[in-house]
Amino acid sequence: MKLCTLFNGSPDGQLVLVSQTGQQCLRVSSLAPTLQSALDHWTEVEAPLRALAQALDAGHCPEAQPFDIRQALAPLPRAWQWLDGSAFQAHGDLMAQVFHTEGHDYTERPLMYQGLSDRFLPATADVVLPSAADGIDFEGEFGVITDAVPMGTPPEQALRHIRLVVLINDWSLRRLAPIEMKTGFGWVQAKPACSVAPIAVTPDELGAAWSRGRVHMRLEVDLNGQRFGAPHGAAMAFGFDQLVAHAAYSRDLVAGTVIGSGTVSNLNYREVGSSCVAERRAIEMLDQGAAVTPYLQFGDRTRMVARFDDGTEGPFGVLDQQVVAAPGAARR
Amino acid sequence: MKLCTLFNGSPDGQLVLVSQTGQQCLRVSSLAPTLQSALDHWTEVEAPLRALAQALDAGHCPEAQPFDIRQALAPLPRAWQWLDGSAFQAHGDLMAQVFHTEGHDYTERPLMYQGLSDRFLPATADVVLPSAADGIDFEGEFGVITDAVPMGTPPEQALRHIRLVVLINDWSLRRLAPIEMKTGFGWVQAKPACSVAPIAVTPDELGAAWSRGRVHMRLEVDLNGQRFGAPHGAAMAFGFDQLVAHAAYSRDLVAGTVIGSGTVSNLNYREVGSSCVAERRAIEMLDQGAAVTPYLQFGDRTRMVARFDDGTEGPFGVLDQQVVAAPGAARR
Repeated sequence: MKLCTLFNGSPDGQLVLVSQTGQQCLRVSSLAPTLQSALDHWTEVEAPLRALAQALDAGHCPEAQPFDIRQALAPLPRAWQWLDGSAFQAHGDLMAQVFHTEGHDYTERPLMYQGLSDRFLPATADVVLPSAADGIDFEGEFGVITDAVPMGTPPEQALRHIRLVVLINDWSLRRLAPIEMKTGFGWVQAKPACSVAPIAVTPDELGAAWSRGRVHMRLEVDLNGQRFGAPHGAAMAFGFDQLVAHAAYSRDLVAGTVIGSGTVSNLNYREVGSSCVAERRAIEMLDQGAAVTPYLQFGDRTRMVARFDDGTEGPFGVLDQQVVAAPGAARR
Repeated sequence: MKLCTLFNGSPDGQLVLVSQTGQQCLRVSSLAPTLQSALDHWTEVEAPLRALAQALDAGHCPEAQPFDIRQALAPLPRAWQWLDGSAFQAHGDLMAQVFHTEGHDYTERPLMYQGLSDRFLPATADVVLPSAADGIDFEGEFGVITDAVPMGTPPEQALRHIRLVVLINDWSLRRLAPIEMKTGFGWVQAKPACSVAPIAVTPDELGAAWSRGRVHMRLEVDLNGQRFGAPHGAAMAFGFDQLVAHAAYSRDLVAGTVIGSGTVSNLNYREVGSSCVAERRAIEMLDQGAAVTPYLQFGDRTRMVARFDDGTEGPFGVLDQQVVAAPGAARR
């Protein structure tokens, strides 16, 4: 099932089913006016939604409308909870090596922080930020959206609470990040709102590419029209099932909890490239003694799309955004 | 103005105005069915709400009802954003001294993390936690609730966005905290849901006790019927105006953002006591070489109430809660 939230002037938008061709969509207001509502009642609405999706694909829905992806908001334009992991060990180990920090023991527990969830930007919205001196960076990652998960749910039960898979750009301000990390309190200023690709899909839509709680797809990241990296999503040290269970240790997870993989990264990052500037800069520091690639300037544009291993474009749609200055922003 | 959210079976509850005597309340559904709704439209609804509050106090509201504080939920039973500071330098410096960490430069920037906001527990709800071995602790603190704050709002303008003041118990799992702090990512498992005292008040309700963006009131904290501490709220190194501005550096703050002071603490903590067990344990480590006071066990009960300097009980109501074991919880 492919789900999308269309702009309708309300904060949570209008939920629609999207046809397999991507040509048509269907409002499902009587079942679930919004994606949050669908997630609140997932076990009741899933079967009727799937039946409607089949009817839509079979051309049996007279109420179907042409699908205009330019009207898409983020699948959840706002969520009650966003917990972002850092599950790609290649990235974590590299950063620890370059910045001479202790490094994280990935055999022991996942890394995770709680981030801003009151808004997720649409996939083509301008990204408005206060200063080009803050080290503006993107982070391409996969994410999942859960229904309600009771406190103490173990990984083997967590998997079935993963209802949707999404593609995320987790915008980051790198010059603020180490200042906030040093406190141990995590990030507030260094992590402004994320962007999410327009289509959220049920895991079955990914076929064999959804396996072991991981997205086995390649994430293609372009910066200003140039390929920046294309790392593969399968290399997570912890599956999303484990990330969900980690998050649910001492809290019930609210339906609509979004959990991220962290920036996609592979051990052969020198060949496949990176999904964030910080990682490329770290490689440059290792290989050349100094970081060369600059962080983003206002006007820079990023593009992200996920592909199956056979090269077919994935179902999430495209993240294509420009970084722009907030009124009164510092340009350097 | 004193505002309270009553249980009505819906996630956001029913907003009521509470009379100055605390004997009566008034539903204000046509203006604002919920506190979130009031905050979404604060500039429009504030004046009519104040007029109704005056009428309620004057006995001119035939629709007034007896106020039963036992029906109270948290003022915001769920919020889009909870950002907790750690603005009491006495506490921060003590913890750094005892745990041999670098310490935070309070002249430079506030400490702040993003926490769980999808639920705030009612003031008398049981606090359900997974293990008594996790170092269960309370943290008494003051908090504010803002309306929408644009990115880049400076402190001198942030003050007017502070619409409500609240009293919070920020439950913490101390044995998990250093593990999560070490990563630099902040807390997920160590910070389960907070509890909030039943009455949210506009700053003017505090009179002279609201000054310089700080709550000049004493927070009385009892554990199992014994006084644990009574530190004063005025000693914040940063006022709430500065905390709001810090939070809004790279994000628009959504209406209904809750910002906390961090655990209330004074330099003379040996005399006034502490508002969390961790601080008392740190003092014991300094003075006696070892922590003596245990963290909480299941069945333990905390009580918190704020008082004006003349000894009068403050308007927030009482936090009075028992810690209980989740099904299958570890008791040691």
